[in-house]
Amino acid sequence: MPKRVDHEERRRQIARALWRIAAERGLDGASLRDVATEAGISLGQLQHYFTSKDDMIVFALRHIAQLAEERVRTRIEALPGAPTPWVILRETLAEMLPLDDASRTGHLVQISYFVRAVHDERLRTHAKEGTAALRGFFADQVKAAIARGEVAADRDPVGEATLLIALTEGLSSEVLMETLAPQEAMGLIEAHLARLFSGGQGIPGGPGSPGSPG
Amino acid sequence: MPKRVDHEERRRQIARALWRIAAERGLDGASLRDVATEAGISLGQLQHYFTSKDDMIVFALRHIAQLAEERVRTRIEALPGAPTPWVILRETLAEMLPLDDASRTGHLVQISYFVRAVHDERLRTHAKEGTAALRGFFADQVKAAIARGEVAADRDPVGEATLLIALTEGLSSEVLMETLAPQEAMGLIEAHLARLFSGGQGIPGGPGSPGSPG
Repeated sequence: MPKRVDHEERRRQIARALWRIAAERGLDGASLRDVATEAGISLGQLQHYFTSKDDMIVFALRHIAQLAEERVRTRIEALPGAPTPWVILRETLAEMLPLDDASRTGHLVQISYFVRAVHDERLRTHAKEGTAALRGFFADQVKAAIARGEVAADRDPVGEATLLIALTEGLSSEVLMETLAPQEAMGLIEAHLARLFSGGQGIPGGPGSPGSPG
Repeated sequence: MPKRVDHEERRRQIARALWRIAAERGLDGASLRDVATEAGISLGQLQHYFTSKDDMIVFALRHIAQLAEERVRTRIEALPGAPTPWVILRETLAEMLPLDDASRTGHLVQISYFVRAVHDERLRTHAKEGTAALRGFFADQVKAAIARGEVAADRDPVGEATLLIALTEGLSSEVLMETLAPQEAMGLIEAHLARLFSGGQGIPGGPGSPGSPG
């Protein structure tokens, strides 16, 4: 009787191998065979899950998006009380910056993807899905803040969401290049957020208020 | 008598070859030999100018920075009257977005560099020089705008410069990935600039005034 394979566990095993390679030397030079070796399986077994390097990178991308989502959720759930839109935005943006090894590796995987997708229309469709989801999530927070009178009603939620994401991605690149210290990047995001929120009817002060720009 | 070589012309010839390769397929997979072939010279002749792929990419990076600077200067000189800080910032940021083939290729070269530099400290020193120069130029414009009463005096010029650059780089990535239309990216930059400038004592209206956010 052939050995039963737990596909979900096998996928996780491959994802972890991809992650280690991405963290150590980047996925750019990694072949399917390298990943199979790292995961301790044969090339044939690996090809059961994906047949090309592009498939592998999309798989890694989805895996890191999932991990990032879990980190954000854990972070927000650890906060006392019901989190406000401002807090949700701040915590999510902080998690997007390469401030620790996990998000740094996530960024390196994204860059490997980016470099290939820029020349490949099929591969870019995944970016479109991911960006739409992230932008929608941020736009919902801005809408909620407008409804609470914390952000001026004439701000466009989708435009503000796009600005916040672009800003954080640009600052992330600077942190990775060491042209900006992580705490400076976070300070600039906080300053931008504080201004976005200062356009409303005012935010109640006291504990939990966003405070002044760093 | 050996043929005299015009080193400056030879460098330009190599730079043009690098540019063509970057535009067509990216520098990631290109070897020194590929570049020599494209430039119509021997590998030995090429190695007179740089001996490694890293040197070649830094050379390409400096070349594109120079071309971008020239494009910005031409663009600003073509404007009527003395350009204000607001106009200089807007035109420079517009030139940084991948809105045409030249700046798109420039971005692709920068990405090739980025991917290597993120794993290489020596290579990152070039990013530090380039970023310091660009940030200083933008900070000077913000300082001038503060002196003219167009930007609130409590804004930090270097912080605002860093935000503007990060924002434009993040939006550029979205344009390259086709998750954002070029005109949307420019609209968001104009909106951000208009808000930066709305914090001052007010900008004189009439022709040439920045107008409302897109």
